[in-house]
Amino acid sequence: MSDFVRIVEVGPRDGLQNEKQQVATADKITLIDRLSATGLRSIEATSFVSPKWVPQLADAAEVMAGITRRPGIAYPVLVPNEQGYARAAAAGADEVAVFTAASEQFNRTNTNAGIDESLQRFAPVLERAKADGVKVRGYVSTVLGCPYQGEVPLADVVRVARALHESGCYEISLGDTIGVGTPLKARAMLRAVAAEVPMAALAVHFHDTWGQALANIAACLEEGVRVVDSAVGGTGGCPYARGASGNVASEDVVYMLHGMGMDTGIDLPALAETGRWLAAVLGRDNGSKVGKAMAG
Amino acid sequence: MSDFVRIVEVGPRDGLQNEKQQVATADKITLIDRLSATGLRSIEATSFVSPKWVPQLADAAEVMAGITRRPGIAYPVLVPNEQGYARAAAAGADEVAVFTAASEQFNRTNTNAGIDESLQRFAPVLERAKADGVKVRGYVSTVLGCPYQGEVPLADVVRVARALHESGCYEISLGDTIGVGTPLKARAMLRAVAAEVPMAALAVHFHDTWGQALANIAACLEEGVRVVDSAVGGTGGCPYARGASGNVASEDVVYMLHGMGMDTGIDLPALAETGRWLAAVLGRDNGSKVGKAMAG
Repeated sequence: MSDFVRIVEVGPRDGLQNEKQQVATADKITLIDRLSATGLRSIEATSFVSPKWVPQLADAAEVMAGITRRPGIAYPVLVPNEQGYARAAAAGADEVAVFTAASEQFNRTNTNAGIDESLQRFAPVLERAKADGVKVRGYVSTVLGCPYQGEVPLADVVRVARALHESGCYEISLGDTIGVGTPLKARAMLRAVAAEVPMAALAVHFHDTWGQALANIAACLEEGVRVVDSAVGGTGGCPYARGASGNVASEDVVYMLHGMGMDTGIDLPALAETGRWLAAVLGRDNGSKVGKAMAG
Repeated sequence: MSDFVRIVEVGPRDGLQNEKQQVATADKITLIDRLSATGLRSIEATSFVSPKWVPQLADAAEVMAGITRRPGIAYPVLVPNEQGYARAAAAGADEVAVFTAASEQFNRTNTNAGIDESLQRFAPVLERAKADGVKVRGYVSTVLGCPYQGEVPLADVVRVARALHESGCYEISLGDTIGVGTPLKARAMLRAVAAEVPMAALAVHFHDTWGQALANIAACLEEGVRVVDSAVGGTGGCPYARGASGNVASEDVVYMLHGMGMDTGIDLPALAETGRWLAAVLGRDNGSKVGKAMAG
């Protein structure tokens, strides 16, 4: 197996959309430009979901216009449907991400549509993206548990991941949205999906709500995954658990990977410095233990 | 392999001795009594190291006199030498713990003695403990790195662990004192020691300074260890990295173990409630993500 792991930095999107505090557009642009200088290859920049649902990222077009895109770095943006895709395309997005859940009830609550209806909504997005030469990433949320239905059957996760892959997503990110997973369950979930979708087309996306993210990532690396989503400074939160942690911190993931002899291409001190800068901008405690330890 | 994991709760000793804030004796007693009601089997209660070095635990004898000891629970206390042992024995300790480092320079800085000199100091402690029917646990610190010498050769860890075991310690706790270890290194270290000391006589002790503790524990569980040190509420800190995290939180370890289908005998909600109470007493942020998530 390769020892290169690609980190998909989701802080500017998944992190900031779940922070209470509104971040100035200029700070978002600075954040992404700083991240671009760390060696990251994928930086999820913003979301073209309606500002009605995600007011924190209402400035998506301005952010896309303001950042300095570097060659070799992908800047995917979240799109919920064809309208969102049109806005993203107009903003010059070279990669988009679509999303659905493995839990029917979560998907209905979150997007006002059942899973199959979501998949149908994405069909024209994938068609247009293909014609435009835009890559599409697919998110599956609630892969290890749902705040409404509790346990999520593995078969449901596999079905949704396979559907997204078959519909043309080049990569499927498997998300433990509420961070309840533990290593053996995470590994079993990944193995089940990898039986139907090639491991090279899979990514893992853990939230650290219950402190398990890094242990889960280590287990999934053993299973063979080589793409990991994370957010600098561990930004974000959990709408289902007040005061809880958000995304796993990119710094902590990179520290672990480098300690395991894996390559990420990332300059860890520069990444950690960016995380500390972001914590200061947000006026919150740095969610990365590595970021704190490196400053100590 | 057994699916029972014994948690050695070190919060009242390793946690509190590294908190800046002085905790009232009555609160320490309440903490231990609450912990005794959670199903824990081992609670490290305090330290008989000279109050000159550890002023936070100067009330060791009062704590030992004040707690309600339950049958089936061990309440080990730290002792540095024969004098400390005499004080611990006078306080009625039924188990003591001795400590040395795998790094010569760390040991000299920390205890004013070389490793071999430390081991010699413990000989009379072990002799007296044997005569008194008191069990002795041995700590090896800096097993995955040292703040002074950096890398610590595995052979040094193995040598010290074996010496403590041969001298009569029933259990050797392998401590990543500065929390720099990552899963593959943790696993390789444990494997090397287990080649010389039976796995059943080994425990792992991780600090979460760099956020790696839970991932390291998961790797060591795979390797076969079944005793894990941790501190409720993730108390403690790191004298070598300001603002850094302390011991891995017991709640987070227990949540992971239960999620992996392992048994600890511990009532997790009661443990998490104790961690939240302790955070309030200390006036600090709860260091357990599980503790926060369960309150959410």
